[in-house]
Amino acid sequence: MTGCVSLVGAGPGDPELLTLRAVRRLNDADLVLYDALVSPEALAHAPRARRFFVGKRSGQPAISQEAINRLMIREARRGHSVVRLKCGDPFVFGRGGEEALALAAAGIRCEVVPGVTTAVAAAALAGIPVTHRGLAASFLVVSGHAETAFAPVLTSLAPHSATVVVMMGLGNRTTIRRTMLDAGWSPHTPAAILLGAGTEGAQAWYGRLGELDSEPGAPASHAPGTIVIGAVVSLATAASGGNFEYQHAISK
Amino acid sequence: MTGCVSLVGAGPGDPELLTLRAVRRLNDADLVLYDALVSPEALAHAPRARRFFVGKRSGQPAISQEAINRLMIREARRGHSVVRLKCGDPFVFGRGGEEALALAAAGIRCEVVPGVTTAVAAAALAGIPVTHRGLAASFLVVSGHAETAFAPVLTSLAPHSATVVVMMGLGNRTTIRRTMLDAGWSPHTPAAILLGAGTEGAQAWYGRLGELDSEPGAPASHAPGTIVIGAVVSLATAASGGNFEYQHAISK
Repeated sequence: MTGCVSLVGAGPGDPELLTLRAVRRLNDADLVLYDALVSPEALAHAPRARRFFVGKRSGQPAISQEAINRLMIREARRGHSVVRLKCGDPFVFGRGGEEALALAAAGIRCEVVPGVTTAVAAAALAGIPVTHRGLAASFLVVSGHAETAFAPVLTSLAPHSATVVVMMGLGNRTTIRRTMLDAGWSPHTPAAILLGAGTEGAQAWYGRLGELDSEPGAPASHAPGTIVIGAVVSLATAASGGNFEYQHAISK
Repeated sequence: MTGCVSLVGAGPGDPELLTLRAVRRLNDADLVLYDALVSPEALAHAPRARRFFVGKRSGQPAISQEAINRLMIREARRGHSVVRLKCGDPFVFGRGGEEALALAAAGIRCEVVPGVTTAVAAAALAGIPVTHRGLAASFLVVSGHAETAFAPVLTSLAPHSATVVVMMGLGNRTTIRRTMLDAGWSPHTPAAILLGAGTEGAQAWYGRLGELDSEPGAPASHAPGTIVIGAVVSLATAASGGNFEYQHAISK
């Protein structure tokens, strides 16, 4: 009689980057709890489900994490199929781990449906491969939300030893630039700021690490976005498929 | 008259983790060039296409990268729709960047269709979130194929400052363990070895960094697989949805 909860990744925004399993789970869902940035087209795959927005508006959560957990558990115990629909991948900065633990503690069946993570796809859709033979054999994905979280890792990492992808870090661009320059990164390291990846309004700024926070074309700090830093940014090419409006051509 | 080339990610192995766009591109394809580990179910989405295996068998490439590039360019110039189908994401260790550059240089229209990357999904399907509040605010994805590639980054990274995901590193487990212990990581750091993520034969070994290469349950070095190292491994729970056969319960 007990239902189940699927923690489902919706991908970076483009509804065509949903997986087949995500669509199937949405189709079968009785209840969908979805975050900001989830597209209406994605929700349209769940025609018979009740749908609740549980994300953030203007940086403020609409509902607490504890309330989301309680809701999922209650609905699953009623025998319902619940989809917790998250942007990107549910286990990359999505609190999916916390939800999985809460469900496991309550004895609720839970599955994870991985999604296309924005950490990789934002760069790819802008023509930037996070790895590239001879340029980068590794990449670091870091939350830019709090200096206490990103400073230890960005300070220690050997300069230019990995592509750096910063999520949710637009508001901390100055600290990120300063931390990396202090750690020995060259101010000439190619860098990109990617907004609205996978959506029609996607925009990209291409420049250098040293001007990450000073470039007039750079976006406002409150916008959600992805920062990519490393030699691979110089590879941005026609491979972007026109998904991004190139505000600045990259100078190689 | 000129055709186009789509560099498409097939996800980690499970055919239901293909994206809707990947399926659409396969449907429309005249030619599909696919790698090892791409499932027959994925190829079945391209019923009218010619399909060529261009991956590796027993570590040896079936065809050189240059020959793959030439084939894509020739077919696109004939007006054909070409899909280059890669495991995981095309821009994560897939030489997708090199292919995009070769196509751009030849004036061929090219798009990237991001996929679910095995780097994140292998862990997620084993119940491991690569990030988790209080445990990891960043993760590093590194190729374990060559010591010259992974040693600089693993040596420099502040111990325990990020989850470490090593792809293609089973054969270098001893060097990886030694490099990380020398850099100051605790031998008690939880670690997992994940094989065949997203396939029916998926297996997981859970243990400690210090026993990464000595545990009798660990797989042979030639098998493709993903290594995950960090406190988040201890979170592996029922969230795995039965995708993995748990060889060892994790001791928290």
